[in-house]
Amino acid sequence: MHKSLTTVALDADDTLWHNERFFQLTQSRFADLLRDHADPGHLADRLLAAERRNLGHYGYGVKGFVLSMIETAIEVTDARVPAPVIAELLDTGREMLRHPIELLPHVHDTIAALAGEVRVIVITKGDLLDQERKIAQSGLGELFHAVEIVSEKTPAIYREVLRRHGDGAERAMMVGNSLRSDVLPMLAAGGWGVHVPHDLTWALEEAPPPSDAARFHALPDLSGLPGLVAELRRT
Amino acid sequence: MHKSLTTVALDADDTLWHNERFFQLTQSRFADLLRDHADPGHLADRLLAAERRNLGHYGYGVKGFVLSMIETAIEVTDARVPAPVIAELLDTGREMLRHPIELLPHVHDTIAALAGEVRVIVITKGDLLDQERKIAQSGLGELFHAVEIVSEKTPAIYREVLRRHGDGAERAMMVGNSLRSDVLPMLAAGGWGVHVPHDLTWALEEAPPPSDAARFHALPDLSGLPGLVAELRRT
Repeated sequence: MHKSLTTVALDADDTLWHNERFFQLTQSRFADLLRDHADPGHLADRLLAAERRNLGHYGYGVKGFVLSMIETAIEVTDARVPAPVIAELLDTGREMLRHPIELLPHVHDTIAALAGEVRVIVITKGDLLDQERKIAQSGLGELFHAVEIVSEKTPAIYREVLRRHGDGAERAMMVGNSLRSDVLPMLAAGGWGVHVPHDLTWALEEAPPPSDAARFHALPDLSGLPGLVAELRRT
Repeated sequence: MHKSLTTVALDADDTLWHNERFFQLTQSRFADLLRDHADPGHLADRLLAAERRNLGHYGYGVKGFVLSMIETAIEVTDARVPAPVIAELLDTGREMLRHPIELLPHVHDTIAALAGEVRVIVITKGDLLDQERKIAQSGLGELFHAVEIVSEKTPAIYREVLRRHGDGAERAMMVGNSLRSDVLPMLAAGGWGVHVPHDLTWALEEAPPPSDAARFHALPDLSGLPGLVAELRRT
């Protein structure tokens, strides 16, 4: 039996639509609110340290980010941050949870083209309700065979999701802007990994590209994806 | 074709293990921290109002609960709450996210007995990572055919999950402590709904029992469930 590619999985944030820009806008506002207490570079370091420390408790997403901002605000002010600043952080969090969805270039046409050829699914991390909201508002929902919101992107999770919704990781491709989460663990699971860089990527998602992986590809944007998929399906 | 029961779905929090008690312990600590600013009854009302107001943004779970506590603390103190109190609320949140799992009576034996007869799945709301942690720590994971963490429990969601993991809602039962989330929408989806009350139930989960529903059952605890399932599968 010919074991060709049958399933294309895509990351969502900063692969299908803008996301990191809203985190960075919020961080500028955060820096501005705390400018009397910490310089922006130092504040960013402390926030990143809090996010990293809290990841095992909070997981990914806006709610954990807001909790980490509040924690950092208390920390850098030696517990003197005034309550109205905390209230503003809560407000920015709620704003992030209703930011409008703006698709990245070529996304709609690419997904529509792929959906006629292969099973197209979304595999994303983040807060459950927020990711569902974004899928709903993207207008792409009906083109997806399945949407899986996961707590982490590991080889085991890719194998499990692609067994459930496809023909296994070996016959699937994962496409996304994060080498660390979208590409490397998918290659480790035995599938194809396609890196589509976004100019803004969260520091905790950075990783060096694989040095020797036959199933690794990189594309400047999603417009080249249907061609790559067609080529892989022919071989 | 005989359309008998093939799938039993169970709620997790306060159906398989204690949960609400940790929320209530945290709320006592919250009331204690703010005792100079609000009487406990008034504070509880304000917190519940915040939780209700934020549900559409945050969804269910501990992270949103902590954010609502912080918001309420700012509100009842006219933005004078000191930062160390906010820091304590963050600490209690992280404690909740690592509270030990204590199974309710009869849970292990019931699930083990059912798993030999029907497909047993879990359908739960809450924070993704936290619910996964609790499933893992429960020691029950291997007995479940599937675990679905959902953002809301509606008839449409029950139909979708039970189509995916079973033979549809008509051949499935949902068992849980919440009439509002576990029983009523499952009856509306065409399945069986079994109420197993827990002595602590969150105010937002309360609802009157159905007055006329052939597929509604109530059990004092889970020990009667294998017998009920066997009876329904014979008829």
